[in-house]
Amino acid sequence: MTKHAVSFPGGIQLEVEAGTTLKEVMNDAGINFDFPCGGRGRCGKCLVRITAGIREPLAEEKEKLTAEELAEGIRFACMTQVHGEMTVEFLSEKNIQHRILISSLNRTAKVEPHITKRYIEVDQPTLTDQRTDWQRIKDGLAAQSNAEESPSKPVPLLRTVPDLLRDNKHKVTAVVYGNEIRGLEAGNTTEKLYGMAFDIGTTTIAGFLMNLYTGEELSVASALNPQTQYGADVISRITYANHHADGVDVLHRAVTQTINALIGEAAKKAGVAREDIYAVSIVGNTCMHHFFLGINPREVALAPYVPVISESVEVDPRDLNLEINPAGMVFVLPNIAGFVGADTVGVLLATELDESDEIKLVVDIGTNGEMALGNKDRILACSTAAGPAFEGAQISSGMRGATGAIDHVTFAEELEYTVIDDVKPIGICGSALLDIVAGLIEVGLLDERGRLLRPEQVTDPRGQKFKHRLLEHDGTPAFLLADADETGGKKIMVTQRDIRELQMAKGAIAAGIRTLMNNYGIETDQIREVQLAGAFGNYLNPHSACVIGLIPAELEDRITMVGNAAGAGAKLALLSQSEYQRAAARARSVEFIELGSDPAFSSTFAKAMRFTR
Amino acid sequence: MTKHAVSFPGGIQLEVEAGTTLKEVMNDAGINFDFPCGGRGRCGKCLVRITAGIREPLAEEKEKLTAEELAEGIRFACMTQVHGEMTVEFLSEKNIQHRILISSLNRTAKVEPHITKRYIEVDQPTLTDQRTDWQRIKDGLAAQSNAEESPSKPVPLLRTVPDLLRDNKHKVTAVVYGNEIRGLEAGNTTEKLYGMAFDIGTTTIAGFLMNLYTGEELSVASALNPQTQYGADVISRITYANHHADGVDVLHRAVTQTINALIGEAAKKAGVAREDIYAVSIVGNTCMHHFFLGINPREVALAPYVPVISESVEVDPRDLNLEINPAGMVFVLPNIAGFVGADTVGVLLATELDESDEIKLVVDIGTNGEMALGNKDRILACSTAAGPAFEGAQISSGMRGATGAIDHVTFAEELEYTVIDDVKPIGICGSALLDIVAGLIEVGLLDERGRLLRPEQVTDPRGQKFKHRLLEHDGTPAFLLADADETGGKKIMVTQRDIRELQMAKGAIAAGIRTLMNNYGIETDQIREVQLAGAFGNYLNPHSACVIGLIPAELEDRITMVGNAAGAGAKLALLSQSEYQRAAARARSVEFIELGSDPAFSSTFAKAMRFTR
Repeated sequence: MTKHAVSFPGGIQLEVEAGTTLKEVMNDAGINFDFPCGGRGRCGKCLVRITAGIREPLAEEKEKLTAEELAEGIRFACMTQVHGEMTVEFLSEKNIQHRILISSLNRTAKVEPHITKRYIEVDQPTLTDQRTDWQRIKDGLAAQSNAEESPSKPVPLLRTVPDLLRDNKHKVTAVVYGNEIRGLEAGNTTEKLYGMAFDIGTTTIAGFLMNLYTGEELSVASALNPQTQYGADVISRITYANHHADGVDVLHRAVTQTINALIGEAAKKAGVAREDIYAVSIVGNTCMHHFFLGINPREVALAPYVPVISESVEVDPRDLNLEINPAGMVFVLPNIAGFVGADTVGVLLATELDESDEIKLVVDIGTNGEMALGNKDRILACSTAAGPAFEGAQISSGMRGATGAIDHVTFAEELEYTVIDDVKPIGICGSALLDIVAGLIEVGLLDERGRLLRPEQVTDPRGQKFKHRLLEHDGTPAFLLADADETGGKKIMVTQRDIRELQMAKGAIAAGIRTLMNNYGIETDQIREVQLAGAFGNYLNPHSACVIGLIPAELEDRITMVGNAAGAGAKLALLSQSEYQRAAARARSVEFIELGSDPAFSSTFAKAMRFTR
Repeated sequence: MTKHAVSFPGGIQLEVEAGTTLKEVMNDAGINFDFPCGGRGRCGKCLVRITAGIREPLAEEKEKLTAEELAEGIRFACMTQVHGEMTVEFLSEKNIQHRILISSLNRTAKVEPHITKRYIEVDQPTLTDQRTDWQRIKDGLAAQSNAEESPSKPVPLLRTVPDLLRDNKHKVTAVVYGNEIRGLEAGNTTEKLYGMAFDIGTTTIAGFLMNLYTGEELSVASALNPQTQYGADVISRITYANHHADGVDVLHRAVTQTINALIGEAAKKAGVAREDIYAVSIVGNTCMHHFFLGINPREVALAPYVPVISESVEVDPRDLNLEINPAGMVFVLPNIAGFVGADTVGVLLATELDESDEIKLVVDIGTNGEMALGNKDRILACSTAAGPAFEGAQISSGMRGATGAIDHVTFAEELEYTVIDDVKPIGICGSALLDIVAGLIEVGLLDERGRLLRPEQVTDPRGQKFKHRLLEHDGTPAFLLADADETGGKKIMVTQRDIRELQMAKGAIAAGIRTLMNNYGIETDQIREVQLAGAFGNYLNPHSACVIGLIPAELEDRITMVGNAAGAGAKLALLSQSEYQRAAARARSVEFIELGSDPAFSSTFAKAMRFTR
């Protein structure tokens, strides 16, 4: 059989048998292209531009196209057969096979959304064609894709069908999910197809509005997780839920209402209508995941720490009162275990730990620290309760990484610091706290057990010029970072208590990493790369992280920052069915290490609390 | 491989390989039997009585069963292997494979309901078994049936899971539909599984409450279709729906509310709780079908007479506000065309026209007359608007076949009639009208064109003794059936106008039959049997039907009455998945003859209007 090369935009090149039509070629290649009349040369809407290997126009084309169009190489795709090498261009961007790029990770994937749209010009009924309305719609779809469509029969949708067809000259757009027709819209609405990816953090919710054809990020919106008013961490929220009759519902509505608001905000920013959003993907820890679905996560907090469900869940937006197009769907990524949730699955997806030849360590630092260690053959994951210190919360002068926060501190000739947005400092955020503690260790103002020395105890020559900053505050030792004259108000200090908070947080994560290594049976020299994810993970100074022992010191030069990898995973799962399926497979294959039942964990943790270099 | 015969109740006999467990045998045979612990010999609840081929009790059985039970032959089915010929009895009726019997048709089918129940004792979680709640439920189900269960994940159900498991010692009953878990109930509720089959007629709605294990009919409830207040026939109801803003909804709610009331009534009669009803099946003409689903049937009334959907539709009861267990499902049988609906499909199912070697004619006589002609190789169907005359409506002295209705009339030495419930007559029902017109023809009081003669025109000697009953009423001829003294009130007459109504009705059906025969290319001698269905079809006198030409006279001795065959079809489809699937296949394969587009129809109809013997 003779074969010819056919090239499409987006770098797609196919070898096809001579005589094949472009319709067949594009269907086989999974290119999203509409043949409204089913490919019978009637509607004249499946236009392509042929720039190499063009044929003479057919009668149907001469009738429907202008002389200019014909001269430009415009032809009907349905009636074009391949009889030689051919180059095809599209007239709409939506037909191009796009790739997603997650720049922080240099990660790409093919755009292949869960929900697609098909414009069809349905045959009108006659006395000799008495097929039902529904049958004609199904046949119209099947004619486009060469596939047998056997959709379900949603009654609420069926109720709209007779008027919809007849008010719109039988020209409609089907919203398709799998083999299910979930919506029918008047006329051709195929250009409008958007989705939103959400990362529901314990503290912050971030949403990304994406074009489901191009994979382009159109806008971002974020807000404080409103559940914080019921508790700063997941355990206190679970406690709230179980001490109030409608507690689960209150927390569920808090998060879904905020998501609705963020959808509105992101849509407005991008000039997109809310009802043109057809897909939402969700990552979050197991507790966030359960509250989002309205499921009580109580058992996650009680031994033996069992979630209600870990699988990925596809939900009708109406079941969650999510205000997107009701023909859309919500895709909730799977959890691995009670404290290793869909957010970690998102991180794994974004970092492609499952394709790595070398062993990598990925740490997502937030209120909880989740970490995964492994390569394509085996991945171990665990979670530790780091507490809010890394996010600047529950620290005496702490604040989130916003305007006025000191974000980096250097112990050089003098104490130097930078402030976000270059204003007078108001407080310190997590990355600065890390720098300060690391500095205090390096200049000998903090001992191995985490105690601030009194000025007279400082023996390290490097510490002499900073020891005047050691003071007593409310009866406990403290280190002065900025005096009242610098801030235009009160002093900014790091207290002994603040240091204890950080010590607990770093100890928890360091012990988690150590336990993963022990369980994997490796030492630091076998870890080729450390990827730090999360908002905090993106701003911290890797050197400081190693000085305080958050990350093993040997790995300092192998650290990279990957930003909000959980959010990147949510975007990948939103834009690509394959990535979503990959997430499901990964959630099943990753081995979860329950630190609580590891006999060595408490001694590992005690050791990890120390500040040893 | 050695094979042994194993017998189960219900006449099931299987040849199985030696060593197979009864669990495997029963799963393969599709016997509904619970293995709550998954068949691990733990729960001691999969008990059977072995009456032939018994083995010595095992340690587990000795521990859990009494000496009497062991002596009686009670054993664990999961731990019993086949090592010789064996006879197994069940301890509960629900395990027996029952058959449905539709007595009017001598028709049987295997009971295999759409919705089943499975009692499971779910593994409790431990630190070494941290499977999620949902996973443990799925695994519990899979262990019972040896099958991979991959159910959907309904979020509202997931919300109930953690409390349900923990409040009930992890003992629950799953309500299963296909591979979907639709409900979870506390403890063992497997004994309670009921369904209702409905025949939604244009005039009457009848519901049958059935035991989904035994196929037994437990009670019947029926009511006037409340839509009659919006129009006597389908066309006037469609008109109503389209002249009122919420017309479709009004008609939809009218029928679903009546169905809810009938469910309540039937359940009460049978002592069954409404929430133990898990399945509803529906037959009705295409218009009733659409209104039931809340779909506008407008286009059925307008050329080219296209329904919105013809396929069978499976609906969540909540989408229709049907008050049965929300874990249940509603099964709406398919339509064939705009005027050959799911009721006709029910009739075909009940009469098994699709399995007949010989050609049969099936006529369902109601406000519309639907008829089908054919055999296992080919079936043609059509529909005619008979009007309400056969049901006694729009007839001057007409009434439904209820107490006080004259139901049969004989022109013997004198005019004789019978009255329903032997009271003084109030009016006449359809079967009496048929007898009267037939009698008038036979004694020569009615001419071929349907005109009542004047007394002086009667020449037939048989007519002489009846001609004094020919009178004039309101200026038109009439025939006196009962004088005021007989009725204790007003005269009961049949007017010329009444005869015209009947003439139209019989002409429509006779022309339909003729057209089917012409299209099939056969004559009456090839029709082996005529089955008359419908309430009217069950009471009419076949001789009268042939005298007036409703049914070709040659077929008089081949007529049988089959009662409410549409309702019987609804019961079959409710109780048996195979029958429901068969209905779907039949709806697709039956050829619909659109009488309106048959060029010969108007002349056939004109001929069929005549009273020729």
